[in-house]
Amino acid sequence: MEAIRYERDRLHLLDQTKLPLTETWDTYTEAAQVASAIRTMKVRGAPAIGAAGAFAVAIEASRLMRMEPIANIANQLISAIDMLRQSRPTAVNLDWALNQMINEIRTTTAATDLVDRLYQRAVAIAKADVRVNQAIGMNGATIFDKPVRVLTHCNTGALATVGYGTALGIIRSLQQTSKLRHVYVGETRPYLQGSRLTAYELSHEGIPYDIITDSAAGHLMQMGLVDVVLVGADRVAANGDTANKIGTYSLAVLASYHDIPFYVAAPLSTVDLGTPTGSNIPIEQRAASEITHIYGQQIAPEGATAIHPAFDVTPSELITGIVTEVGVVKPSYEIELPKMVQMGESK
Amino acid sequence: MEAIRYERDRLHLLDQTKLPLTETWDTYTEAAQVASAIRTMKVRGAPAIGAAGAFAVAIEASRLMRMEPIANIANQLISAIDMLRQSRPTAVNLDWALNQMINEIRTTTAATDLVDRLYQRAVAIAKADVRVNQAIGMNGATIFDKPVRVLTHCNTGALATVGYGTALGIIRSLQQTSKLRHVYVGETRPYLQGSRLTAYELSHEGIPYDIITDSAAGHLMQMGLVDVVLVGADRVAANGDTANKIGTYSLAVLASYHDIPFYVAAPLSTVDLGTPTGSNIPIEQRAASEITHIYGQQIAPEGATAIHPAFDVTPSELITGIVTEVGVVKPSYEIELPKMVQMGESK
Repeated sequence: MEAIRYERDRLHLLDQTKLPLTETWDTYTEAAQVASAIRTMKVRGAPAIGAAGAFAVAIEASRLMRMEPIANIANQLISAIDMLRQSRPTAVNLDWALNQMINEIRTTTAATDLVDRLYQRAVAIAKADVRVNQAIGMNGATIFDKPVRVLTHCNTGALATVGYGTALGIIRSLQQTSKLRHVYVGETRPYLQGSRLTAYELSHEGIPYDIITDSAAGHLMQMGLVDVVLVGADRVAANGDTANKIGTYSLAVLASYHDIPFYVAAPLSTVDLGTPTGSNIPIEQRAASEITHIYGQQIAPEGATAIHPAFDVTPSELITGIVTEVGVVKPSYEIELPKMVQMGESK
Repeated sequence: MEAIRYERDRLHLLDQTKLPLTETWDTYTEAAQVASAIRTMKVRGAPAIGAAGAFAVAIEASRLMRMEPIANIANQLISAIDMLRQSRPTAVNLDWALNQMINEIRTTTAATDLVDRLYQRAVAIAKADVRVNQAIGMNGATIFDKPVRVLTHCNTGALATVGYGTALGIIRSLQQTSKLRHVYVGETRPYLQGSRLTAYELSHEGIPYDIITDSAAGHLMQMGLVDVVLVGADRVAANGDTANKIGTYSLAVLASYHDIPFYVAAPLSTVDLGTPTGSNIPIEQRAASEITHIYGQQIAPEGATAIHPAFDVTPSELITGIVTEVGVVKPSYEIELPKMVQMGESK
């Protein structure tokens, strides 16, 4: 399963707003189109957004080279990168990928090499993401020595990444090593990434699961049906505080109350040592209409008011461990995370 | 605002599955039709179901008297009551109301009085419900001495009762006494009673509110935006354990974690001293399709599996107080609840 396909001058994205009922691939040839696809969540998931952003810069360079005088290219590319950076504020992987593209622009000495180098860099980011996720999956699976019942939230699978997935990568690895009993999938209002996307991936894999409303998570824990909570991350601060899809924090409190381990699966590209704590992470506020309407159908009364924070922050003290490609990070995170990042860079 | 209107031989119910966009009143002349309306949640809310069940018995008696030989009436009425009792298992108010109707059948000595006595009993149940809710509202409002920001769940208003509401009755009383700052309304998946019904009532009253996804409750508490959680109840066991809409338990755990008071608003008709603890309360499991589809629109992939417990149980130790028509009950509930029930009966 994949949601991103790429060529040198065009990017193909599976429209995730239409899944699971319709599989529509759209083709993008300009950075502005990709920024719009990120904003409207046609592509979503922190690692997938990072890769899509990188390819957006590559295809934009290709387009500009065919259309603009050479003197304008660098500035216009930097403007495009700024626009991409602002498309969604919470996930840090987009920043991380765009910074690599800026670095390519700065270090490319022959103009004729630029498009090729940007494309190769984007391809490297994409390919690394799949390898990284497989490593997260393996590292996560080693935590458990007998089959577990997992509760997960949102979609952290192949669709949220370039392939395999983060928290869902661990679920895939657990399945492969016969250590998975069942998956409970929070539907993840308002975008229903759980019931639309995670259920779609699990169905494809033949993994046994049940969708639940987000509000049923506490009840399931109370009934003793959940052995571990596995979630992804949009940004991990230097102290381990983690921003993720709205509802993650509630799950972490509930898991703590029921003495259930709570693990975050995150590539090191999601760890932002430049952000000291969770309070420094910008929380995206999305439109009220995404809550008052479903599939264009009005739910709430005319004039109803709603607030829609798209993410929340789970403080590090509620996180049992953070599963990265170089190993499982345990508290204290402010000491262990920098070590892991260094280990990742030296690999 | 009202959702139940009654005549001697027919019952009119506002179809709550169509609110807030369409206000459709349906007329019922048989108990079986009312049982179906309860099962399909056209009428919902523990006190409203109790009153609708009582009127269903009265209209059924009226119908049978016109159609059946006198020898069959009592048995057929008892069968109709059994059918009504099974329409939804968790809320106890339906049992409570139906038991009163059985008592009328048993104690009516002149057959010609039966229809009239059943109707008068149902009217008494309906009228008492409004008075009781107003008392709950007043008692609840006395808890607070300055304006509060309330988080509520599901719909506990005029639509869930015969009038005024339980937890939403307290919100109405707070508004009337200038002690209400804001209401946060959990949308309450899957039926969206929060965004469809509570928002509708609050909009009518001009009360300031915001709908949130159920999973955002923890985040709001973490941000310091919630002063108190107010919810209703479908059944309160003798020890104070309370069954209510799925998601209530999660809110109680989150409130406890954030040191936010958590109050249950319940008429004494919801207190079931015959049920010792929450583990004895039957939890209704509803169809998976109510989660995998919205308004007939399929969300999840073909063949997706889901589980849908409609209620959960909040253990009494997480409940700050239970607001009844005779006062606010505080722990220990196993001692105080029987006193309150006795006080209610002697009134």
